[in-house]
Amino acid sequence: MRLDTINPQAVKAEYAVRGEIPRKAHQIERELEHGAKLPYDSVLWTNIGNPQQQPILAQEPLTFWRQVAALTEYPALLHMESTTRDAMFPTDVQERARQLLDSFGSVGAYTNSRGNELVRQHVVDFLHERDGYVEDFDNVYLTAGASAGVQLLFQVFFAPGNDALLIPTPQYPLYSAASALYNVEPVYYTLRSDHDWDVNFDNVREQISVARAAGVNPRAIVVINPGNPTGSCMTKDEIEQVIELAYNEGLVIFADEVYQANVYQNERPFISFRKVLLDLGKSSDPRKRDMSQIVELVSLHSISKGMTGECGRRGGFFVLNNFDKDVDAEVLKIASLNLCPPAQGQIGVDLLVRPPREGEPSYDLWKKEVSSIFHTLKDRSELIAKRLGELPGMKVEPAKGAMYVFPRMHLSKSASDAARKVGKKVDEFYCLELLEETGICVIPGSGFSFYPEYLEDGSSYSFFRTTILAKGTDEMVERFVKFHMHFMERFP
Amino acid sequence: MRLDTINPQAVKAEYAVRGEIPRKAHQIERELEHGAKLPYDSVLWTNIGNPQQQPILAQEPLTFWRQVAALTEYPALLHMESTTRDAMFPTDVQERARQLLDSFGSVGAYTNSRGNELVRQHVVDFLHERDGYVEDFDNVYLTAGASAGVQLLFQVFFAPGNDALLIPTPQYPLYSAASALYNVEPVYYTLRSDHDWDVNFDNVREQISVARAAGVNPRAIVVINPGNPTGSCMTKDEIEQVIELAYNEGLVIFADEVYQANVYQNERPFISFRKVLLDLGKSSDPRKRDMSQIVELVSLHSISKGMTGECGRRGGFFVLNNFDKDVDAEVLKIASLNLCPPAQGQIGVDLLVRPPREGEPSYDLWKKEVSSIFHTLKDRSELIAKRLGELPGMKVEPAKGAMYVFPRMHLSKSASDAARKVGKKVDEFYCLELLEETGICVIPGSGFSFYPEYLEDGSSYSFFRTTILAKGTDEMVERFVKFHMHFMERFP
Repeated sequence: MRLDTINPQAVKAEYAVRGEIPRKAHQIERELEHGAKLPYDSVLWTNIGNPQQQPILAQEPLTFWRQVAALTEYPALLHMESTTRDAMFPTDVQERARQLLDSFGSVGAYTNSRGNELVRQHVVDFLHERDGYVEDFDNVYLTAGASAGVQLLFQVFFAPGNDALLIPTPQYPLYSAASALYNVEPVYYTLRSDHDWDVNFDNVREQISVARAAGVNPRAIVVINPGNPTGSCMTKDEIEQVIELAYNEGLVIFADEVYQANVYQNERPFISFRKVLLDLGKSSDPRKRDMSQIVELVSLHSISKGMTGECGRRGGFFVLNNFDKDVDAEVLKIASLNLCPPAQGQIGVDLLVRPPREGEPSYDLWKKEVSSIFHTLKDRSELIAKRLGELPGMKVEPAKGAMYVFPRMHLSKSASDAARKVGKKVDEFYCLELLEETGICVIPGSGFSFYPEYLEDGSSYSFFRTTILAKGTDEMVERFVKFHMHFMERFP
Repeated sequence: MRLDTINPQAVKAEYAVRGEIPRKAHQIERELEHGAKLPYDSVLWTNIGNPQQQPILAQEPLTFWRQVAALTEYPALLHMESTTRDAMFPTDVQERARQLLDSFGSVGAYTNSRGNELVRQHVVDFLHERDGYVEDFDNVYLTAGASAGVQLLFQVFFAPGNDALLIPTPQYPLYSAASALYNVEPVYYTLRSDHDWDVNFDNVREQISVARAAGVNPRAIVVINPGNPTGSCMTKDEIEQVIELAYNEGLVIFADEVYQANVYQNERPFISFRKVLLDLGKSSDPRKRDMSQIVELVSLHSISKGMTGECGRRGGFFVLNNFDKDVDAEVLKIASLNLCPPAQGQIGVDLLVRPPREGEPSYDLWKKEVSSIFHTLKDRSELIAKRLGELPGMKVEPAKGAMYVFPRMHLSKSASDAARKVGKKVDEFYCLELLEETGICVIPGSGFSFYPEYLEDGSSYSFFRTTILAKGTDEMVERFVKFHMHFMERFP
């Protein structure tokens, strides 16, 4: 096996959030561990939304979650002497663990390939409470995280070498990487960087026309709401327009809604695609009612984001609306090749969709922990936006949602020239210099298929994404400010 | 999306161990739950190696495993008042949990896409102890079970529509299903049913010639040792022959060794492909030394089998020997699309490769539990083989290894005729009748690409696979014997 004899589609795939810059950062981290003298003593991992990463981000897990998980792992704890047990585990935690154990039998057993039945029923309840509509139990699939769900569905839906997929720019690079791997042609449409990163519908329609004229067949559209890497939030009207577009063009919608709990403002609250789609069924307009019955929607959710940040468990779910039963049977079959999602990921979904309720013993602590995480994220986003926004050439908005800010920088021609000399795009060059000088690991816009825009005078608008997770946000900002001022001096 | 517009390769994939018969069994189970009156009160799930499945199989998890898992889930338990804590958790359990927590930071954090570094180091130690050779740390990948590892490597190695793969018959249907899904041409070679299910090397060479003559390019060979569904074990000589074949024909070896701890006899102990390959490096024959340096070997292992049976955690690992570093980089990149394997699966690998040692506080209990599971499996295999082997037309050997027996039945022409009338192969017909009459769910040979052999008189040799896991083996055997006698009366 050599690079030129293996799957060319695998070779083609790029995944920047774990690509060159993070690899370089790992190398620096190893050098620091081996005593290298650098101007900083740690790498700041702000390249990926991994809230519980130690020691830099170190978001504490929710107590309720971990208590239930421990009891399901080692049920003997439920049979301890009751005073000790009750002092250690609130009764609602014990009750939840018993329910889950009754249904799973053991966390060491395979479940149904769609996931455990009790948990899926609770997802149905959650969807009902969130959107006002009961869902068919069989339309809910538990997954090993949203990424696994996306890949499963790409494998089933798309004929390699034949189909195309509409992907926003900027995008989360899972979509471009999976398109490359599964030989689906990516067709990029733009988000309006000057207008809350709203979908540029004129551009979407144009891209579809151009694609079709070239014999390429877009069969689905990816929408990420709240936005990654943009931190944007969609309006109800915008979601309706996406649904109408999908209806007119015969597209499946992939609604990546993994950041639905990460919304930091009130003007654009989270509304699910599913709710908007099902609401259309109540319209007086028969065309809209038809959309509600016809448009195929995949909604993806995850336990890795929100206030839980339980990335390592690998858990999530997707819901299929308006899909043919025969297609669903194929999804189930291909899901079964991996037997089932990890049990603790499935249990995580249960805890996500069924948090403690007011009045239950675990509620107060859970509420306090969740609020604290929420406010920390919001504060950090605002702090980063404020401090970086004061820097020359930098335009930054706090995240409306998700876990990222996505600053725009106006960089000089001399920066572009310096980047070209080392064979890099200017945003990559900036981020590599940032990493080497400060240990801060961020991902350039290019990694999200959003490339520097070069102006007539040779200067550029460049972007990068940073998470809003760093525990030492102040320190990160200090390091950053110093670097940026120096960079702007070097490349005026 | 309709069946004729989705990925035709996905539609083509078949996965019998979770296919028609298990689906039918689920239906029967639901009917029983809803009070249906059938001649039996439960489905006996002997279709898949899922040892901890409740209530039928109900293998107890190893205490050591679950204690460590609970502490890593909820580290507050480590900070309990020490008398209570030490009474509940042996000190080596606490020590192990602390080590793992130090390295993982949190089980809620993503790890390296290859898996946690500490666990991988322990896999290296395990390989050293098992085979006598230290492995390069970077050659070890932790996975979400062996199936996930196989699929990852298929995606990276094989150019869809171009490459072919040698698969044994009978085989575990993951291999045929993944071949279909990833558009790799399966080329089946036979195992010698009359000779310990040894590889039929004449047949392998013939299949390669035929394939090449047809323009099909076999690039790898799958070997399952101990065998699934056959329960066979390979000799050192046979493994050497496979390596020589791979060397001569330029094939990558996929050595599926997930049942390496499930060996119930001493004539054919488990020897790893890796050990045999590396031992060739010490040969006086330069050609053999060359093989040792050249033949690319993938060795797969899992926490789902053995004496642990921790299927629900989704954990395993593979080791790459003699692969090009550029190809390895592609494996890592594609692995990173799923971020990382589940943390509790990775911790499971640590517990698998680093069990308690003699003298440590957990050793005695661990040893007792492991021995008990081992002897139970061995006894059940022998019981099933003995009792079923006494039945007319039935030839059964106890499992030499793995978790299955694979009886051969001589079924009459009238059975074949009856099967044909309902559009089934005779082995499928037999297994469906068995399920409906007794609730016992087994998988016919056809599900393992091993089809009935029709004799001149219209009778057939048919096979089926049953696990040796059923808690109520006696009851299973009773139901089975009764059914078989009745079947043979109906179709004499």
